[in-house]
Amino acid sequence: MAENSADLIDADTPDTLRLSVAEAVEIGARALQRVGYSGEDARIIVDQLIDNALCGYKFAGLPRILAIAGDEKTTAGRAPVKIVHETPLSALMDGGNNVGYIVAYRAAEVAIRKAREHGMASVGAYNSYYSGRNAYFAEKVVQEGFVCLHIASAKPRAVPPGAARPALGTNPLCFGFPSAKGPVIFDMGTAALMWGDIMLHAHLGQALPEGIGFDERGRPTTDAAATLRGGVATFGGYKGYGLAFAVQALGLLAGAALARGQVQDYGFLFWVVDPKIMLPGGDFEQQMAELVAKIKDTPRQPGVDEIRIPSERAYRERERRRKEGIVLERTVVDSLKAL
Amino acid sequence: MAENSADLIDADTPDTLRLSVAEAVEIGARALQRVGYSGEDARIIVDQLIDNALCGYKFAGLPRILAIAGDEKTTAGRAPVKIVHETPLSALMDGGNNVGYIVAYRAAEVAIRKAREHGMASVGAYNSYYSGRNAYFAEKVVQEGFVCLHIASAKPRAVPPGAARPALGTNPLCFGFPSAKGPVIFDMGTAALMWGDIMLHAHLGQALPEGIGFDERGRPTTDAAATLRGGVATFGGYKGYGLAFAVQALGLLAGAALARGQVQDYGFLFWVVDPKIMLPGGDFEQQMAELVAKIKDTPRQPGVDEIRIPSERAYRERERRRKEGIVLERTVVDSLKAL
Repeated sequence: MAENSADLIDADTPDTLRLSVAEAVEIGARALQRVGYSGEDARIIVDQLIDNALCGYKFAGLPRILAIAGDEKTTAGRAPVKIVHETPLSALMDGGNNVGYIVAYRAAEVAIRKAREHGMASVGAYNSYYSGRNAYFAEKVVQEGFVCLHIASAKPRAVPPGAARPALGTNPLCFGFPSAKGPVIFDMGTAALMWGDIMLHAHLGQALPEGIGFDERGRPTTDAAATLRGGVATFGGYKGYGLAFAVQALGLLAGAALARGQVQDYGFLFWVVDPKIMLPGGDFEQQMAELVAKIKDTPRQPGVDEIRIPSERAYRERERRRKEGIVLERTVVDSLKAL
Repeated sequence: MAENSADLIDADTPDTLRLSVAEAVEIGARALQRVGYSGEDARIIVDQLIDNALCGYKFAGLPRILAIAGDEKTTAGRAPVKIVHETPLSALMDGGNNVGYIVAYRAAEVAIRKAREHGMASVGAYNSYYSGRNAYFAEKVVQEGFVCLHIASAKPRAVPPGAARPALGTNPLCFGFPSAKGPVIFDMGTAALMWGDIMLHAHLGQALPEGIGFDERGRPTTDAAATLRGGVATFGGYKGYGLAFAVQALGLLAGAALARGQVQDYGFLFWVVDPKIMLPGGDFEQQMAELVAKIKDTPRQPGVDEIRIPSERAYRERERRRKEGIVLERTVVDSLKAL
């Protein structure tokens, strides 16, 4: 699951529909408006979901609208995202129980505005859920010419080494860099497997690889459904655990504990830096492009076609799918239209 | 090697000496002054080396003075570390070919000063080598009440997935957080093994674990000496590679390419944020302490005594060794006195 197989997920079958981007946007936006989102909020959400699908994250695409519609937080009340504390360089934002797609988008907007004015910004948001794909927000920041760190802390689902219960979110961590050849984004989860992938395994009745899942009593399991009731290992031993810990701590800086008094909760943080405050000649973008080229030119192992650069393949796939369209299950489209 | 065994490294034998901190500082500072460092520079370097030894990183302690003394960069000319570009929030510093212990220390000082004045800072330094232990500098920043990200990019020694030659530094990444119970620092290398550990394996004639080393022709090897002529794998598959890549890119922001026109070179970067600009009540430190307590209280697997928190064991060992002293090989002490 960690590797996308474009051929596999883009196959046309009797059970699929191939939609243009415009068609997919239309279906998604209408469905979101029927769930209760304003036209503007629906546009913000669907823009990310379409981008996820274009980049090859099929299950982070329009099917997520069904998950959003079914989440009890979506039917609970929500208030507009608002800044509750502010300095020239920083903002803390109450997400008003809006879904993360909207809250992180608003936080990125504020971070961009402050970095434009002052060269640096730290913006955090809390009282939200379901952060979406960090790389999407980081790319928005990078398109303005800025370097950024973006994290999303969440409620406990990841099990620290030696533990029998989750204590950390799946806690993605993302760095974004502008380059003369376009944005370069590195986005990783700190859990051994994305929660969405575990849900998918459970849905399909597939076993998880060994060493990833724990059931509700903390016993190692390969049963995906049991793992959803228990937790997932942090990735990469103590290093991955340490990163998951750091993301949870950065989430506190974003106000995570202010929503429900829980220190293990959702928080979205952006640290944004204009590279011109560091390299006055504006050379950073050129140097980044040169770094990418140097790494790609590294001599390879026999049989290896290419050294990969973070985000490179996703953006290549996005270009292709913009022309070829997005493939969706007919049942998903029917369900969206029935919302 | 990844795990420190305090009992092992603190054993008194006929070949060892046990020194008080004051004695070790005296021996180290005198040796550094004989190598050509001023009293102030010697104090800065030795303070870190002693801290490394106290925290259990034995080979990052006083023995490093022998490595510094033998490095050709140490005998090449050096100039005082100086700021070459500055904004209220940022500084870019030319390290003047000083060893990283001094350059990163000066960069941390400037970052602290700017964060005190403005709540945030980004400070980078280049034209240096041998960055030392990131956690040491991060702790200095955290002791002032600030959250920080600190990275050190370096020249190519780490081999990306699929590559046959190094293209990235061993590139450590460090996050630091103040808490009501003291600093919490997470510091990790992005290579599968620290370069110093590979040097130690080579010195002792020990084989490396499988999957870590590549020889000078890019062939997988367990021979540590051959690995020193080749390179070390990045840690943790594509996630570790992506982190190593991100650190190299952040190094560019610190001016890494300005020293020698190489985009794969040494750069030390600090991003510092005063948590009070985010959480006005000053609650961050309390929440951090609560997060640590919650994670430590997580139910454990059978036979597990404790859930570890990043930096916790190092600081516990430091307290113990401050009382019990530091154990050094007699040959190391003799060599230091003979410099």
